[in-house]
Amino acid sequence: MYKLVLVRHGQSEWNEKNLFTGWTDVDLTERGMREATEAGKTLKNEGFQFRYAFTSFLKRAIKTNQLLLEAMDLLWIPVEKSWRLNEKHYGTLQGMNKTEMVEQYGAEQVQLWRRSYDVRPPAIPDTDARNPRHDARYQGYNDPAATPGTEALIDTVGRIIPYWTNNIRPKLHEHQQVLVTAHGNSLRGIIKYLKHISDNDIVSLNLPTGIPYVFELDEQDNVLKDYFLADDETLKKLMEEVANQTRQK
Amino acid sequence: MYKLVLVRHGQSEWNEKNLFTGWTDVDLTERGMREATEAGKTLKNEGFQFRYAFTSFLKRAIKTNQLLLEAMDLLWIPVEKSWRLNEKHYGTLQGMNKTEMVEQYGAEQVQLWRRSYDVRPPAIPDTDARNPRHDARYQGYNDPAATPGTEALIDTVGRIIPYWTNNIRPKLHEHQQVLVTAHGNSLRGIIKYLKHISDNDIVSLNLPTGIPYVFELDEQDNVLKDYFLADDETLKKLMEEVANQTRQK
Repeated sequence: MYKLVLVRHGQSEWNEKNLFTGWTDVDLTERGMREATEAGKTLKNEGFQFRYAFTSFLKRAIKTNQLLLEAMDLLWIPVEKSWRLNEKHYGTLQGMNKTEMVEQYGAEQVQLWRRSYDVRPPAIPDTDARNPRHDARYQGYNDPAATPGTEALIDTVGRIIPYWTNNIRPKLHEHQQVLVTAHGNSLRGIIKYLKHISDNDIVSLNLPTGIPYVFELDEQDNVLKDYFLADDETLKKLMEEVANQTRQK
Repeated sequence: MYKLVLVRHGQSEWNEKNLFTGWTDVDLTERGMREATEAGKTLKNEGFQFRYAFTSFLKRAIKTNQLLLEAMDLLWIPVEKSWRLNEKHYGTLQGMNKTEMVEQYGAEQVQLWRRSYDVRPPAIPDTDARNPRHDARYQGYNDPAATPGTEALIDTVGRIIPYWTNNIRPKLHEHQQVLVTAHGNSLRGIIKYLKHISDNDIVSLNLPTGIPYVFELDEQDNVLKDYFLADDETLKKLMEEVANQTRQK
């Protein structure tokens, strides 16, 4: 039996300001750092002993992973980073206020950009300095998915699945337990794949930040059990918070 | 031309207390964290752009590396950790006060343990819980050097050279620049090898903490130039500090 643990990074500076973040490399807030440490303490108390961890190319996930491992006294384990675990790219919405976008474009349009499976926000042009093709970390990959101008969830899922198959799954089978610290939408991709969730249903799955989500898997990736490491009240509160982000004030 | 940058971790809790540390996994002090961030700022200002970094299995080096990369906005690059970059193992001296050991055993004996090339401090027995064979991170290596009860510098150098040849050098040639954040004695091993320093002379080379030490190398590992990234006054002060650690009060 294999244990896969997914953790969504703690609060970032732009979560706090209610801005679309995507591939923008913003830092964690103090609260985000505390959430990471708490997640590590919880996992340590539950007896987890990771020998391998994965995270994205974005510092809010990298630092969450580091603080979590520090709390587990596991800073020494290998950490593999990949752009494939990055958040969904939000195109020109990145840096925009979620509530203001609702006022400007209407709740329905914003909901499509945020939560439809295949509608992409407007793309950042190739010539724009904010496009990933101008960022050193995304160079040299023989895959256009590494330098997107925008993404719908279908694109994010499309770049996660090969990473699950080629990187995460082999390490899980080698070490019995692995940790993946990433983002709301990249984790949705893994969850969709493992739980066979439909395109329609995956968009309404809201993951709380900083709460370890444990999957017990058999040899063929069948989910034997999946559960969050938190009490019910904490969970409910966090999930409502995520769901309410675009509500107008 | 290749640029290898060596950084000795910043002040640790046991440096501050003047205890022998070795493989004991103690944390950085606030000063040690500041030193790491300063080193990163210096390297960024000097235009370094690492694409690969190495560090040890000990948190004072791992955290120095992380804080340094954070200051350079390079948290996303791969970081390879190895027990081969660990500090020299100090046997049963680990946890003992350096000045008290001088009072107890005499300056000459302690100087032999600290600064001779091939005299080992008394070993921690295999059955002692502090022996690395009881620590998960050192399991599974087909090399007795991964679980020492004590080491002289000759042993530390012996485990570093293959790591230079098989791991660091190939990545340096691939990326032109690499960063190695480690410990006084493991870095001595690399410096001894590159600068052809004799067994007698290497023991008196004192590296300042948190100051980037740059080696410019040609294709055959010949040192074209080596220099610290700090002003002369800072350097002199730091080196005297290290040299004076065993002076009796």
